[in-house]
Amino acid sequence: MKFYLTPGPSELYPSVADHLRSALRQKLTSISHRSQTFKDIYAETEKNLRLLLAIPDHFHLVFASSANEIWERIIQNTVALHCTHLVNGSFSSKFADFAQKLGKNTSLIEVPFGKGFQAENFGEPANDSSQTEMLAIIQNETSSGVSFDENLMALCQKQYPTALIQVDAVSSLPYYTPDFTRLDGLYFSVQKGFGLPAGLGVWIFSEKVLEKAKTLQAQLAEKGSSIGSYHALPDWLSQAQNHQTPETPNVLGIYLLGKVCGDMLERGIKTIRQETNYKAALLYDALERSQLFTPFVAPAHRSKTVLVADFLAEKSQKSLSQILQLFENEGLIIGKGYGKYKESQIRIANFPSHSKELAEKLADLILKY
Amino acid sequence: MKFYLTPGPSELYPSVADHLRSALRQKLTSISHRSQTFKDIYAETEKNLRLLLAIPDHFHLVFASSANEIWERIIQNTVALHCTHLVNGSFSSKFADFAQKLGKNTSLIEVPFGKGFQAENFGEPANDSSQTEMLAIIQNETSSGVSFDENLMALCQKQYPTALIQVDAVSSLPYYTPDFTRLDGLYFSVQKGFGLPAGLGVWIFSEKVLEKAKTLQAQLAEKGSSIGSYHALPDWLSQAQNHQTPETPNVLGIYLLGKVCGDMLERGIKTIRQETNYKAALLYDALERSQLFTPFVAPAHRSKTVLVADFLAEKSQKSLSQILQLFENEGLIIGKGYGKYKESQIRIANFPSHSKELAEKLADLILKY
Repeated sequence: MKFYLTPGPSELYPSVADHLRSALRQKLTSISHRSQTFKDIYAETEKNLRLLLAIPDHFHLVFASSANEIWERIIQNTVALHCTHLVNGSFSSKFADFAQKLGKNTSLIEVPFGKGFQAENFGEPANDSSQTEMLAIIQNETSSGVSFDENLMALCQKQYPTALIQVDAVSSLPYYTPDFTRLDGLYFSVQKGFGLPAGLGVWIFSEKVLEKAKTLQAQLAEKGSSIGSYHALPDWLSQAQNHQTPETPNVLGIYLLGKVCGDMLERGIKTIRQETNYKAALLYDALERSQLFTPFVAPAHRSKTVLVADFLAEKSQKSLSQILQLFENEGLIIGKGYGKYKESQIRIANFPSHSKELAEKLADLILKY
Repeated sequence: MKFYLTPGPSELYPSVADHLRSALRQKLTSISHRSQTFKDIYAETEKNLRLLLAIPDHFHLVFASSANEIWERIIQNTVALHCTHLVNGSFSSKFADFAQKLGKNTSLIEVPFGKGFQAENFGEPANDSSQTEMLAIIQNETSSGVSFDENLMALCQKQYPTALIQVDAVSSLPYYTPDFTRLDGLYFSVQKGFGLPAGLGVWIFSEKVLEKAKTLQAQLAEKGSSIGSYHALPDWLSQAQNHQTPETPNVLGIYLLGKVCGDMLERGIKTIRQETNYKAALLYDALERSQLFTPFVAPAHRSKTVLVADFLAEKSQKSLSQILQLFENEGLIIGKGYGKYKESQIRIANFPSHSKELAEKLADLILKY
């Protein structure tokens, strides 16, 4: 039996197989997405997600097909001209690329790969900060294992008063506790911390985001342009408020997300967060003490859910691939570094799907070599 | 045990549950979408689809999240100003709405709900036919059960020489045999004729479509606009040619589609088409002879995969809902009419997932009442 401690897609949450069987038994893949049965499934998923993440009532929620789609929808629906992106790794950089591809003026607040943001990065607001319509914050950079310092959120709000703040928590939820007074939007995809099959993303956003989409829709209509079709935010949301989607959605994905959120609620989100802290401490400790690996990120900015370490090739007689194969022989699959760090780093996911026993076994293995 | 003869989502293809179990056993939901294992899955699905639908080598293929997404991508990627839509029901009308929402000038060739197109509909090309960049043909209108007369395809090509012809075969594939010399694009979603869980669409298109996207991309870039981000066609296709997707895709959906196409190839597409004809003949015959229902569409335009019938309320002592409940009590769930025909029509799906025995049982039931 092999276990995936890769940073997404990752190990399924333990109850997923049972819920899948139950969905098949009930033939939920055959029901109409306009039926009351579907609306009930949608409503339960939304209710459980709201409870789990303590989403305030005045925040809205829609289902997309991926976090990539959400990047595109954020730009289309809420940015007329200008947005600003915090960039410290491959995914935050890719979101900025999306904005550029969609024809927007894009400012970057950039720190090197693997580094965290500090107050001084926001100390002198760019000249155009007052024109920025959207500030993209990367709460957890999946490529480099850097976590955003929550204390900087207030500073971001202050320095970018006109911007809607959108937070990428793709690989940190549900561990991450969002402060909804500090953000306007939050999104994730389900194949990471929620331990589900890929093919579903969730975007949570405030009334201000909806208002901006409506204003932009009216402005663009005059120019013969638009904010989109089936996922233009006002239409998208009006379906969502009726517990439906404009398109035939990933019904199974929505069902499974609701069930897994229900299971997490039963286990207790506090317990899940404590366990995540415990496992992260254990694994970082092992990486610190290891002869072959060393944590890549400075302690203050280390992600608790995606742990990245440098491979100390000069101290090893084996290649990184050979060592990862040894881990795999013991039943544990961990990730290689992202992009150009593929041969020089490892990435370990620490999601709710990963038991304490798995983390302990991995820590032992790290220390063994 | 209940069986869904609804026109999408519908009954799963009989082998889907086994393939799902196999996917879970192999932990395919946990693998990286950048791994060779995923690329092999992608390649097998594409190979099987190409064999099943006899797709010529010079046609490309990409995976989307739904047919709704494909509507949007067709407009964004290939229409600068003007498109023409054949409209004879709710879905063909909705595609035209998408084009309008995206700011395009849209011409309609419209016939009433339930009617088929005839040569005279194309007899006098509209003044703007020479400017039309895209002609949207609805091969099978899921709302009304009307099938497009394949003989008109050549006429469409002749009358709209500048247009890229995109064919909606959402609810007729794999029964429908496309003539790829007559079209530039073809698309479907998997929850209908392929008998799979919803959340995946497939768009097949020619080199001309790609060329148009590239030209449009260059034109729009000069205006600070664009054809999209992760699903801008050139980027989308370059990932597809490497058997990958820009986003983390619905891996399970892609896997299941490949497996079901493989099963259909084994059964034989000719057999599947013959069985579809047999079941359609049986069901239309029952509807003709029924006291309570009568086929809605004239014989020449009747769909073989989505059968729509009027409910003869004046001859019935029971309401349509009561009668459908009687069917359901016997284990057969069929669809109500679409939209405003909800209380006055029925819709019966006749997909490869529906066995001859099911069709025979339904025909008996139709005649019983």
